[in-house]
Amino acid sequence: MVVVGGGVVGLAIAWELVRSGRDVRLVDPEPASGATHAAAGMIAPISEQRLTEPALHAAAEASAAAYPAFLDGVPGGGGCGFEGVDTLLLAVDDADRRALDDIAARHPGEVEQVGLREARRLEPLLGPRVVAARRVQEHRVDPRALAAALQGALADRVVRARVVGLLPADADADAGAVTGVRLADGTTICADEVVVASGLGAADLPGMPFAPPLRPVHGDILRLEAPAGLRPFLTRTVRAHVRGSRVYLVPRLDGTVVIGATQREHGGAGVSAGGVYELLRDAVAVIPAVAELTLLETTARPRPVTPDNAPLLGRAAPGLLVATGFGRHGVMLAPLAAQAVAQLAEGRTPSLADPFRPDRFS
Amino acid sequence: MVVVGGGVVGLAIAWELVRSGRDVRLVDPEPASGATHAAAGMIAPISEQRLTEPALHAAAEASAAAYPAFLDGVPGGGGCGFEGVDTLLLAVDDADRRALDDIAARHPGEVEQVGLREARRLEPLLGPRVVAARRVQEHRVDPRALAAALQGALADRVVRARVVGLLPADADADAGAVTGVRLADGTTICADEVVVASGLGAADLPGMPFAPPLRPVHGDILRLEAPAGLRPFLTRTVRAHVRGSRVYLVPRLDGTVVIGATQREHGGAGVSAGGVYELLRDAVAVIPAVAELTLLETTARPRPVTPDNAPLLGRAAPGLLVATGFGRHGVMLAPLAAQAVAQLAEGRTPSLADPFRPDRFS
Repeated sequence: MVVVGGGVVGLAIAWELVRSGRDVRLVDPEPASGATHAAAGMIAPISEQRLTEPALHAAAEASAAAYPAFLDGVPGGGGCGFEGVDTLLLAVDDADRRALDDIAARHPGEVEQVGLREARRLEPLLGPRVVAARRVQEHRVDPRALAAALQGALADRVVRARVVGLLPADADADAGAVTGVRLADGTTICADEVVVASGLGAADLPGMPFAPPLRPVHGDILRLEAPAGLRPFLTRTVRAHVRGSRVYLVPRLDGTVVIGATQREHGGAGVSAGGVYELLRDAVAVIPAVAELTLLETTARPRPVTPDNAPLLGRAAPGLLVATGFGRHGVMLAPLAAQAVAQLAEGRTPSLADPFRPDRFS
Repeated sequence: MVVVGGGVVGLAIAWELVRSGRDVRLVDPEPASGATHAAAGMIAPISEQRLTEPALHAAAEASAAAYPAFLDGVPGGGGCGFEGVDTLLLAVDDADRRALDDIAARHPGEVEQVGLREARRLEPLLGPRVVAARRVQEHRVDPRALAAALQGALADRVVRARVVGLLPADADADAGAVTGVRLADGTTICADEVVVASGLGAADLPGMPFAPPLRPVHGDILRLEAPAGLRPFLTRTVRAHVRGSRVYLVPRLDGTVVIGATQREHGGAGVSAGGVYELLRDAVAVIPAVAELTLLETTARPRPVTPDNAPLLGRAAPGLLVATGFGRHGVMLAPLAAQAVAQLAEGRTPSLADPFRPDRFS
């Protein structure tokens, strides 16, 4: 089998196929350099308030639950920073408070009310503008470490090359059937099954039997570092609703802090000055000491997003599986995508993935 | 002669010495990588409101006036982006307006009152929060291009090495006399005259006969790019006073925009998240379309600053000249420093530099 695309989804799929005994090649000129490189790595099916579609939410819960077993099978998976996190949800005005109430109402028993005094005890750097707090138990992982571990596990099954087209079957075969891929250097790799997991690249891949309805939603994200006198900077993930906009702060044990992420439907691929401004403004609003951090890195990447914000995951033609359109949820949904593709390759139908049929828009 | 330090001041000095017929070596492990790399390049003796010391102001005016002739002698100097600029000074509240009035009062006849309607005609991207505008004619240069031209002109006179100490004269010579430098690889360069122009590095250079009173004042500065639909982004330099803090926006012909610069007495050497936040906040306050720019680069560098904010420029001992402590004004004052050092090397006394005697604090 050939997996086209070495983001976290393609890497997870390729590894799951290897584990199930398949002969696999993953083809990508620069694996893990797209949205995976930007991602903060929160596995947050509850506090990701935008997950309002029931099917997407069920998939997120299932994928989050599948993470430990998935990582157990990855050599070096223990070093990917997977851990349970206590996420503090914060609000700074009444509308923000109602947004927290909405999350709590959708997840009875899973969102704990936290008084402001208790919130400040938990995170002493909390600023005076915070008016409400909730707490939820979720998970996180380090996406760059995860991608590196998966690349290491796949070893020489990773082919650093660009796929320029799918190989069609002979004329007498099934319509749209695919039998391999053509690389930029003119060589081909034949395969009984091709998995297109190349994010936005799936939209203009020659030979696709349909045009995946994907649009780029750009995201800006910051990596910062706390000075020695401000460590630990935070002891848990903070997600804040700040006058209608949202920001998260993810502290890591090494003293770095990830602050993200914007969602821009317009604008260019580069880092947005307005995006960086809004992230810092909202982060400083809830944690004023963010101003004391050193800015290490500003990153922007486009996410592949579909019209209903759910992924495209399933069979597109004989010999052709598709796994793209994961938007902001590629890291969270990677184990689910890997399981689903492994089942599809065996001719089985993964029930959770049915709402994500690639042909649902045609 | 040996010049220690390849920032814009050291480079300008070395070039002026070459022009006057001297045998010169400039020693720096990485020329133009310090404050010169960050600098925006405004030659702004009027609108640099902090230039309140009369001696410093006179030097700034003289150095700005000397720029064209200085650049004329530099091969490639025509490509350094030196040009007259129409700077628009802006205010967003009454106190900011008074700051503009102060500048106008200090420079009678040089600061033009501009109505808001006219200001908006000049710069259509001006935001609604601007309450007052003034205009002044100054100059600018591209510091990275200038440093590159000077390095090119100096050619193999630039020695990429680290100076680890000054060579003392024999015991029977003048006290504190210097006869050359020792490099990190143990070799020495003998010289009739050493010019220490290594910024903050001058403070801990072994063999210095006095400890230059220098402290680092860190600055953060941003380089951004306007999307095609927003060009020209600005047609002149904008300097804004925004509720007591200051920001400048320098557009360049290639569509890039420099936004700077913070002044941090505390904090680390890395880019400050709070600094970036304040620059973007204040820039967006006067030019809201700044939010549409792509952020290309965030840079922080420490500037070498003395107790009275004026440079250390003059003779420190037989065989030893000093040119450091230029703070925010290295680019503006480089031609003056170059002239002064060339005169000092000939035994003359540059009148404008007298207030900057290196021994004035002892």
